Amino acid sequence: MSEFDLIDKYFTRPTKHALLGVGDDCALLAPSKSMHQCITSDMLVEGRHFLSTVDPFRLGVKSLAVNLSDLAACGATPTAFTLSLSIPQVDPNWLEGFSKGIWDTALEFGVDLVGGDTTRGPLCICITAIGEVPPGDALLRSGALEGDDIYVSGTLGDAAWALDVFRGNTSVDGEIFERIRRRLEQPTPRVKLGVALRGVANACLDLSDGLIGDLNHILQRSGVGAELSTEWINNSEAISGDLLELGLHKRLEYVLSGGDDYELLFTASKDAREEVRLAGLQAQTPVTCIGQIKKEKGLQIFDPKGGLIQRRFASFDHFQFPA
Amino acid sequence: MSEFDLIDKYFTRPTKHALLGVGDDCALLAPSKSMHQCITSDMLVEGRHFLSTVDPFRLGVKSLAVNLSDLAACGATPTAFTLSLSIPQVDPNWLEGFSKGIWDTALEFGVDLVGGDTTRGPLCICITAIGEVPPGDALLRSGALEGDDIYVSGTLGDAAWALDVFRGNTSVDGEIFERIRRRLEQPTPRVKLGVALRGVANACLDLSDGLIGDLNHILQRSGVGAELSTEWINNSEAISGDLLELGLHKRLEYVLSGGDDYELLFTASKDAREEVRLAGLQAQTPVTCIGQIKKEKGLQIFDPKGGLIQRRFASFDHFQFPA
Repeated sequence: MSEFDLIDKYFTRPTKHALLGVGDDCALLAPSKSMHQCITSDMLVEGRHFLSTVDPFRLGVKSLAVNLSDLAACGATPTAFTLSLSIPQVDPNWLEGFSKGIWDTALEFGVDLVGGDTTRGPLCICITAIGEVPPGDALLRSGALEGDDIYVSGTLGDAAWALDVFRGNTSVDGEIFERIRRRLEQPTPRVKLGVALRGVANACLDLSDGLIGDLNHILQRSGVGAELSTEWINNSEAISGDLLELGLHKRLEYVLSGGDDYELLFTASKDAREEVRLAGLQAQTPVTCIGQIKKEKGLQIFDPKGGLIQRRFASFDHFQFPA
Repeated sequence: MSEFDLIDKYFTRPTKHALLGVGDDCALLAPSKSMHQCITSDMLVEGRHFLSTVDPFRLGVKSLAVNLSDLAACGATPTAFTLSLSIPQVDPNWLEGFSKGIWDTALEFGVDLVGGDTTRGPLCICITAIGEVPPGDALLRSGALEGDDIYVSGTLGDAAWALDVFRGNTSVDGEIFERIRRRLEQPTPRVKLGVALRGVANACLDLSDGLIGDLNHILQRSGVGAELSTEWINNSEAISGDLLELGLHKRLEYVLSGGDDYELLFTASKDAREEVRLAGLQAQTPVTCIGQIKKEKGLQIFDPKGGLIQRRFASFDHFQFPA
């Protein structure tokens, strides 16, 4: 099979919005009138971002989902994406599964695959996604203000738990594993919530490297500090029933420093509490308040009983973790 | 060095046009009013698209240049790009050189680096570039018409010759090698020419896989055939003085089936000959007529004496060539 046959068979479908999709030197988009364009790009490498044994369908879903999650974090409506793919060999089963994961996710979020590249090499996936946001409405990391509430969407910690199981550090009942591995392998980009938070949230990002590390990005960019409570770790919509089976220490570790949640972390004024609640309802996504933005720099974390947690929690770093 | 320090040090500079560049979940662009957006993405993998010994500065130049070349092929003005990079280790010398190649090229073409990703893994570079073109002016592969002249920009064949030297198949004088390897390692994206050909060329693409194979893309998309002359291979602006040192057979091989030229291949009506000449002058880029578009499907190639060439010339294919 030639490169062009491969692209034709697995990665070419009519576009819904783009003027021109796969097949020419460039794709052609007509942006909506006076909208700003958001762009994000993620590269996924075998052994680092996914295990070699991962189901190709799930890998296809995740590859696109993590990019849509970045768009969600900016409050953008996704429109199009490019897919560049390096694969060690032409394996029809793998390509069938992977492309189905891509197409199913693209269809669910109404986004066009408009181009990219295919080559032979180590398994590596690079997607660049584009979305639109009205001028001034983009949610940035830099907008957090003193007194803001800090929120997370969905549930935290399950993906990190699943990764720990994959790594052989812990074991778990099969049914629970099926649920938590899905959180790791097929994250849910919070696109609807991101759009609903336009004009409501002051700062926002998506959680990929762990709550503490990612919250620090907001704090640094915004020039503020924060206090994080954790009593919600014992009983809130932000914690799955499965995670509640674990001891407090493990839960804290997975929730505070585990990555791969792809939930939104955002701040909003106390006056906007009702609007935040409505945004969550509108997006059918749980939203939980987990702390407050403070004027004083630094991040203080309190245990569920209100005592200050002294221990440092690591954040995922592609260059500092062992290879 | 952490991932964020690395991005900060090597890949972050103020943007000239983009509203928001590197550092948030997404970059933010404000497209020019009513312009269409062109998008292209290329992935470069060590051992396949470049040799492991390549100078990192030149690799930086080429990585961006091949994407700008795709934009040029559509007649687009480049505006921004994302860079996703997988590297086996943090090597300051390599990063210094590579990023300088990227920044020098970005500066030359007035394009903003607005985001991307950095991770540890096999050396792999994925750039997605964005440009703008007025509605209706994008140059496509599908626009060739019966009777069109076929043109190429610049010179052909030198890059394929240099690759042959690198592979040890042939040897060459050191001074010549310095010139031809530059054509392989630092191609010149024909951005000015692409813009000058708006409304002049009927079809266009950039030559990356070889003249025959790439011309066939235009023929297939346009539903036409072509006759290609080769008398220009003996004496024209499309052949460098260096290549003229070679025998006819080698020249034909490098020019017809060698890849990596990153010149524009385009067609234009016979009535537009003066406009094509002026576009070349305006862009300070040689432009040479090499054939004609025919109604009858298929591609006929004539040797410099006018005899039909029967031999088939291969085109580069990432999946059919030996690894």
